[in-house]
Amino acid sequence: MQAKTDRVLSHIDANLDQSLERLFALLRIPSISTDSAHAGDVARAAEHVARDARSIGFAAAPVPTPGHPAVLGHYRKNNRPHVLFYGHFDVQPVDPLALWDFPPFEPKLVEVAPGRTVIRARGACDDKGQMMTFLEACRAWKAVTGDLPVDVSLVLEGEEENGSESLPEVLRAHRKALKADHCFICDTGQWDRDTPAISISLRGMFHEEIVVRTATTDLHSGRFGGAANNAIRVLSRIVADLHAPDGSIAIPGFYDGIEDISPAMRTAWRRLGLTPKKLLGPIGLSVPAGEKDRMVLEQISTRPTCDVNGIWGGYQGEGVKTVIPNEAHAKVSFRLAAGQHPDRIRKLFRAFVRARLPKDCSVTFTNFKATTPANVRWDSDQVRRAGAALAAEWGRKPVLMGQGGSIPIVNDFKKILGLEPLLIGFALKDDQVHAPNEKYDLQSFHKGIRSWARILAAFAH
Amino acid sequence: MQAKTDRVLSHIDANLDQSLERLFALLRIPSISTDSAHAGDVARAAEHVARDARSIGFAAAPVPTPGHPAVLGHYRKNNRPHVLFYGHFDVQPVDPLALWDFPPFEPKLVEVAPGRTVIRARGACDDKGQMMTFLEACRAWKAVTGDLPVDVSLVLEGEEENGSESLPEVLRAHRKALKADHCFICDTGQWDRDTPAISISLRGMFHEEIVVRTATTDLHSGRFGGAANNAIRVLSRIVADLHAPDGSIAIPGFYDGIEDISPAMRTAWRRLGLTPKKLLGPIGLSVPAGEKDRMVLEQISTRPTCDVNGIWGGYQGEGVKTVIPNEAHAKVSFRLAAGQHPDRIRKLFRAFVRARLPKDCSVTFTNFKATTPANVRWDSDQVRRAGAALAAEWGRKPVLMGQGGSIPIVNDFKKILGLEPLLIGFALKDDQVHAPNEKYDLQSFHKGIRSWARILAAFAH
Repeated sequence: MQAKTDRVLSHIDANLDQSLERLFALLRIPSISTDSAHAGDVARAAEHVARDARSIGFAAAPVPTPGHPAVLGHYRKNNRPHVLFYGHFDVQPVDPLALWDFPPFEPKLVEVAPGRTVIRARGACDDKGQMMTFLEACRAWKAVTGDLPVDVSLVLEGEEENGSESLPEVLRAHRKALKADHCFICDTGQWDRDTPAISISLRGMFHEEIVVRTATTDLHSGRFGGAANNAIRVLSRIVADLHAPDGSIAIPGFYDGIEDISPAMRTAWRRLGLTPKKLLGPIGLSVPAGEKDRMVLEQISTRPTCDVNGIWGGYQGEGVKTVIPNEAHAKVSFRLAAGQHPDRIRKLFRAFVRARLPKDCSVTFTNFKATTPANVRWDSDQVRRAGAALAAEWGRKPVLMGQGGSIPIVNDFKKILGLEPLLIGFALKDDQVHAPNEKYDLQSFHKGIRSWARILAAFAH
Repeated sequence: MQAKTDRVLSHIDANLDQSLERLFALLRIPSISTDSAHAGDVARAAEHVARDARSIGFAAAPVPTPGHPAVLGHYRKNNRPHVLFYGHFDVQPVDPLALWDFPPFEPKLVEVAPGRTVIRARGACDDKGQMMTFLEACRAWKAVTGDLPVDVSLVLEGEEENGSESLPEVLRAHRKALKADHCFICDTGQWDRDTPAISISLRGMFHEEIVVRTATTDLHSGRFGGAANNAIRVLSRIVADLHAPDGSIAIPGFYDGIEDISPAMRTAWRRLGLTPKKLLGPIGLSVPAGEKDRMVLEQISTRPTCDVNGIWGGYQGEGVKTVIPNEAHAKVSFRLAAGQHPDRIRKLFRAFVRARLPKDCSVTFTNFKATTPANVRWDSDQVRRAGAALAAEWGRKPVLMGQGGSIPIVNDFKKILGLEPLLIGFALKDDQVHAPNEKYDLQSFHKGIRSWARILAAFAH
């Protein structure tokens, strides 16, 4: 097997230009899923991706949904391990366009430093580039050996950036065909430029908008100042109380049931040496704001958080106005750790707010979509196999890391298909994902393809 | 003297229509001092008022200033008590015009309830109507007796609604001629519709805008949530800390040096029966937000306050955004009690804010014009004389009350001319001062003229 794998890797190296050409063709399609004006482009991207998969040997086609189409593909011989792969071919909007240094849908290779070349385009990293690392690995195996080392099914999505609302139903409808032995997801990052990573947890989240109301109208502070409550004062008290002086979240019961990382994992993480200075220095900060008894790496990845994303009330124009505002607004969001259910935390939060409300004031809540957090088993055979393959490619063992963000569909794969996803990706922290000037390192693309080629071999027996 | 006064009062009753005509002529001039497009109208109002005073017998003329003109007038025989009167003939802007039920500069009498007629116009109360109560009282005295009972000087201002910036210099330049025995100011209100009032304190105030900054840019909560501080969180903590749980202001040293009202005054005020329900019920509230050991009447008039007039930061649009804002703003204002100097309180406030700032965050302050608070002596001969005159007119003793708002020029009369102002006015709480649909009760105008006619007599000896 190792000899075959080596031939495949050489083929990948020799054919990188053609791999890039195929990626660029996909990057030229502005498949922005949140903008209905681009619905045709998303459909075009689905056709393109299905055609690409068929050219490798997959039986692949777009699957219509109430939203944008997904693409399902199968390369099956049966009687051997079966791998499900997930990626997505839709992209984030490009506004504000003025902040881009290049046209987002005209992909280009640019050497940004001696020996460092990047692919510039919207979607170059998230997730077209990442998705294509897997497809190109399959293509190389097929080209060199006439076969893939394992059975492979593809679930490629066209509305990940728009909430993945249709995907659960697609998984349910095709549950039988998609019931694989392993599930690979390529939408996460590396530890750093030279070190691969396997993600072992994803935070959940929910958003809540609250409006505090006091008097029936705005009041003049010369007439009522002192006696009449002020909606901003009430709201600020609530917001301030959310955090205890030790940086923890002060909502009673908030931490109950959290599935914490193991002491062994914590020891391993401590050795990674992510100091407050390293993390916060580049953004102009130095004092970690989270739980004082946790490493910053835990604070940003596995520990739950609460942030006020916006606040407003009263007079915000030039100069001054002697008004006592009767209304104040805040947008609050929570990142959740495995073991915390959004509905339960939402209830606790609302009770916490109500308990701080003077009895003549009122509050209204508006809830937004919630995502359940997920831990992924890290002491499993599949993590060990993939880890060894990554180590062989990168010359370093992968870091098992927590993801600070959320990937909603991870729970769908767990719940609907009973699969424990393996989260491997090659994004770097400076890839400008969701922002202007998105890029993907050529090394991420090249070694990403090589990594998947090795991982496919590692799952063949 | 009483017989003369009675004839003057009858004359006032018999000539009310002509008094109204003169008021209406002044109300038709849109003398909005904050709007430079109306500078000509303010000048025209000054000419009009000077002419009106001359027709009574005053030597009166507009006095140019770097801003809008003031009007000075003198009616002097010397060797008798000399009274200085202050009022203003400029008005507030009328925006938003759409909220007015009538054209603001077309004054009209309207019967709003059986037996209750009001004068509708911008300035009907603040301060053209109030100023004219005094001039019409002088006119009646002159018409009936051929003389005024005292010497009178007029200081009528054209930029009170624009900060009174030129007035101190006018007072200084004419200090000698204006050095009277008494100073009457007609720009305040009654206790209620049937009860007159003499104001004995004015709160000072100052405004401050603060901006809290944390990281160098907005951050993504999926990547830094937990470890990176949030400007809204820092600002909310500062705002929340400003008030102690007992409703007092928690800035150390804040209450030092306040000249509190006397126990006798407090007892008198308690008898007025302004309950939280009476004050707060009409605005939809029931729980006083100020110092728990103070009556609501103290909270809104003689006790210092702190209000956040506006707050903003982060994402305020529709839906959600997982941003950690790096900047948050608040407009904070303080009402001050006699004995508190704005500069000192501003320093205490800034130190209080800085003490709550994490060491990697910063704050900037923008200060706005401050007004020093003022107490007026209430146990004086002039208050007793004016009080007796008001009691004779209204059939009720005047309430000695604190003004929750500020009148900057009161301190100028004290400092520059050494005069203790007597604050008497006939505004009602529903006069919509500074707001659309301003009005002045016909009773306020009529009995206001009669009140001044009696007060002039009371100061004749």
